[in-house]
Amino acid sequence: MYRSNTCGELRATNVGQTVTLAGWVQKVRNLGAMTFIDLRDRYGITQIVVEEHSDEATKEAASKLGRECVVQVVGRVIERESKNAKMATGDIEVVAEKINILNQAVIPPFTIEENSDGGDDLRMKYRYLDLRRPPLQRNMILRHKMAQEIRRFLDGEGFLEIETPYLIKSTPEGARDFVVPSRMNPNEFYALPQSPQTLKQLLMVSGYDRYFQIVRCFRDEDLRADRQPEFTQIDCEMSFVEQEDVLEIFERWARYMFKEVMNIEFNEPFKRMPWIEAMEKYGSDKPDVRFGMEFSDITDLAHGHDFVVFDSASYVVGFAAEGCASYTRKQIDELTEFVKRPQVGAKGLVWIRVDEAGAIKSSIDKFFSADDLKAIAERVGAKCGDMVFILCGDKFKTLTQLCTLRLEVAERLGLRDPKKFAPLWVVDFPMFEWDEETQRFYAMHHPFTSPKPEDAHLFDTGELGKMRANAYDFVCNGTEIGGGSIRIHDAELQAKVFNALGFTPEAAEEQFGFLMNAFKYGAPPHGGLAFGFDRLCSLFGGSESIRDYIAFPKNNAGRDVMLDGPSPVAQAQLDELFLSLVKPE
Amino acid sequence: MYRSNTCGELRATNVGQTVTLAGWVQKVRNLGAMTFIDLRDRYGITQIVVEEHSDEATKEAASKLGRECVVQVVGRVIERESKNAKMATGDIEVVAEKINILNQAVIPPFTIEENSDGGDDLRMKYRYLDLRRPPLQRNMILRHKMAQEIRRFLDGEGFLEIETPYLIKSTPEGARDFVVPSRMNPNEFYALPQSPQTLKQLLMVSGYDRYFQIVRCFRDEDLRADRQPEFTQIDCEMSFVEQEDVLEIFERWARYMFKEVMNIEFNEPFKRMPWIEAMEKYGSDKPDVRFGMEFSDITDLAHGHDFVVFDSASYVVGFAAEGCASYTRKQIDELTEFVKRPQVGAKGLVWIRVDEAGAIKSSIDKFFSADDLKAIAERVGAKCGDMVFILCGDKFKTLTQLCTLRLEVAERLGLRDPKKFAPLWVVDFPMFEWDEETQRFYAMHHPFTSPKPEDAHLFDTGELGKMRANAYDFVCNGTEIGGGSIRIHDAELQAKVFNALGFTPEAAEEQFGFLMNAFKYGAPPHGGLAFGFDRLCSLFGGSESIRDYIAFPKNNAGRDVMLDGPSPVAQAQLDELFLSLVKPE
Repeated sequence: MYRSNTCGELRATNVGQTVTLAGWVQKVRNLGAMTFIDLRDRYGITQIVVEEHSDEATKEAASKLGRECVVQVVGRVIERESKNAKMATGDIEVVAEKINILNQAVIPPFTIEENSDGGDDLRMKYRYLDLRRPPLQRNMILRHKMAQEIRRFLDGEGFLEIETPYLIKSTPEGARDFVVPSRMNPNEFYALPQSPQTLKQLLMVSGYDRYFQIVRCFRDEDLRADRQPEFTQIDCEMSFVEQEDVLEIFERWARYMFKEVMNIEFNEPFKRMPWIEAMEKYGSDKPDVRFGMEFSDITDLAHGHDFVVFDSASYVVGFAAEGCASYTRKQIDELTEFVKRPQVGAKGLVWIRVDEAGAIKSSIDKFFSADDLKAIAERVGAKCGDMVFILCGDKFKTLTQLCTLRLEVAERLGLRDPKKFAPLWVVDFPMFEWDEETQRFYAMHHPFTSPKPEDAHLFDTGELGKMRANAYDFVCNGTEIGGGSIRIHDAELQAKVFNALGFTPEAAEEQFGFLMNAFKYGAPPHGGLAFGFDRLCSLFGGSESIRDYIAFPKNNAGRDVMLDGPSPVAQAQLDELFLSLVKPE
Repeated sequence: MYRSNTCGELRATNVGQTVTLAGWVQKVRNLGAMTFIDLRDRYGITQIVVEEHSDEATKEAASKLGRECVVQVVGRVIERESKNAKMATGDIEVVAEKINILNQAVIPPFTIEENSDGGDDLRMKYRYLDLRRPPLQRNMILRHKMAQEIRRFLDGEGFLEIETPYLIKSTPEGARDFVVPSRMNPNEFYALPQSPQTLKQLLMVSGYDRYFQIVRCFRDEDLRADRQPEFTQIDCEMSFVEQEDVLEIFERWARYMFKEVMNIEFNEPFKRMPWIEAMEKYGSDKPDVRFGMEFSDITDLAHGHDFVVFDSASYVVGFAAEGCASYTRKQIDELTEFVKRPQVGAKGLVWIRVDEAGAIKSSIDKFFSADDLKAIAERVGAKCGDMVFILCGDKFKTLTQLCTLRLEVAERLGLRDPKKFAPLWVVDFPMFEWDEETQRFYAMHHPFTSPKPEDAHLFDTGELGKMRANAYDFVCNGTEIGGGSIRIHDAELQAKVFNALGFTPEAAEEQFGFLMNAFKYGAPPHGGLAFGFDRLCSLFGGSESIRDYIAFPKNNAGRDVMLDGPSPVAQAQLDELFLSLVKPE
């Protein structure tokens, strides 16, 4: 072993001991008579002193040290004259008796410190150096700890971690698969799993009852910000359970994680919110409930005042931005421009100011009397000092637009505190989603999701749009962290769903026959869910970006700029795979 | 929840309780007045009774049950009249009050029992049914438990589990990569990692100090028996360590695993055996040391007796097969044929019988006197009742052939007891391997493996074949379970190794430049190892085949016959990937 102690370990109690440390040179300060070296490893930093009366070899070695050199230091622990309360090892320093340079280092392209001077691209290219920085080290350690705790809890509850294959069969449904040409089966391809959904359902058919896996998933999608082509999922499935059982156990799991990892306890059960309530109150199926500013439908109050914008809209909705009555014209214009951006798509923004004295002013004074405006302000719960923001149009489109505004206002008000956590279950998702373009219903979750039993009669009345599913999402701070459903295990019900989705029995057989066939051999009632592990790490870590929690992430073009992959392969390899390249135009 | 208890849980203490069970029908015995149903889940089997005076609906339901139906039973726990001591729940049975058929099942293609009547191919096709059988359930549970214990130990020792990417860059060195065409980077390919070797070394450069991962690895090799194109590795790396540190911690880890999982304790430190000793004594770098029958070099005794077979051989080696003096002519002929098979390749087998009375008889009586034969028998340690087997030829080829014979004899003698474990470290592997065909040295481990410091002078004398590496294997019962090395962290030494391997500096830069470049920024001394997790499971589980410990394995053609993958993909998908298929001839 090249060391007796780590660089984060020594305290006043170690004074007098002779120790051996090894690590990277963080900083060298040559004060002439003395040289101070900050020696770093992942456990901390220890100050090394080379004194005037140190032997020549030691002084010589110290003079050669640059940033990020790897050295071994033998020395004696002494008490510091001026202690540094900010450092865990700040009570001591180590007087070097021998310095052994293990490896020299060229000057790194950016500073290896809490905040680096390197830009994103440079730090991605030298990710192995960026990973030396304390914030990334904290993230990797957090992720490790979370993974261990996840397993500890689920193992304790009788879940079995079962590895499922990464080389599976390509399926046409869902997102785009990454495929892997098979050399031994020419012109055939494996697919990398988008999730182990089918395999975990098979494990339920196999009787494994409580399964989980922390597993890599792959999706060949056009990358949006903060999406990765490979990501990690906490994948779970249970047999002989109903929705309530799944929510119960995974709420306990989430509480365990918050307690063990973050030392946060929740006194109340997690809120449960039907999907329709989440949409109507927050304009989102993943509402951020760290703060209020809930929406109110004011369509009835808005119509009939000769204001054509409102009159021509099927839905008018608003919320009270707390304490925003003082917003200037400029600030309001900014927010108006914000909602009019193509990404949001609103036509304009109506506001009603309720000043500290209760006086009301609005952008629609022309059409609405003070009493009319007051009625609206009251409906949305505006207090003195608040500003009401109103959008109108098609119901769900407008709600979604207003959600964006609500989050922007909250951001400006500092209400999106990453240290505060507001978990909730969104339940009662719609079973089917109508697609205007193709004029058909699609499964909102997937075709194996079961409807709520009390809504099953809607198959007969044809009101598919009203049918709710036994599907649920775990949401925290405006982010979907996980989701799942109770699956259909009854062949007759499954046939009805396929029918509703417009599959002929033959088409259903062709696409889903494999799983359906397995179900014939005795499928138990089952359900489950999956959590995004990268996302959960970034939630706990308080960062917006999952990349910060992945050791070697890819950029937005799906490239690993550190490894410089993907890359061309040799013709011989293509020949072996019976493939040839087509030149892109 | 569909159940109040599992099928493995109820005992005499539960008598009188009303319970709800759910599971699969293992067996139905209709005795006219009464019907007995064995209800199974992964926890066990409980006997359900439907009595003559049960209500009609219950009797009706019972009459409809076939094997593997999924049912829910509500009933009262009663004490059995005739207890079954072989069943954990054998003291009780449950009198059914309500039987709820959750799902019917068609008749499975083979029996779901401890020993199935299904052939290999059929059971692979219906793997989800095979996984219902108790042996496979035990294997999956064992694997789960082992994975948890591996993590518990390494987490306790400060190792961080860090996930490395599965979509990396293809490297020309080593085995064949599986490649993944990139749609976003046309005509470029990711590679699936053969192991995270480079990435874990980068993590050492990043300062992570103690890393591990239970990780999938991929190799596109022609499959030999019991190889899988994807397999799982316990991958570990440490910084600031020497070989002794790595062996110490992973010997403790292995002891922990044997104790926690198998309840086996070893009193002695694990044996350490230099590679040359393993080869000379056992003819293998992964010797099975559960039993003796060590080899002795008898070249000196064998030469000079006008026996041209021996005289023309550079090496003559034999061992005493314990208690095999009674082998008949037929048995000896069998073994002779065994070593003459092309897979072994020996030319013939010489034997010396030392009977119970000490009388000696041999296949080479013509050339050797009784005293000569006695001298040989003594050299190989033959006692009365033993049979000496001798092969000759080129040294290492002959040793390898004799190893095969030794294992075969041990197998016949019942010495390869899967319940007995003989772990050992094989150390001091040669640094380089000479290849006759290409007339050059190859790295026995990989080009980053460091030589033993005391052998480094051999670079100067050019005796590369004699140089030993800081490389080690963990071997148990004749199987290599793991292996690794201390890596080179010194640029000068690395250059010498590349030179010895015949790389020009330019070629070395081209192939390994990426890692070499990272090393320039301060690489710590580091080393590690990796264990085959599938193999470790099969060792602990006492099976020869790793397939039995993988939920969804592939067959010898690399196919998943259950999913029927790999498979053709749609032309549209190939177009998106800018690929076209080449027809195999």
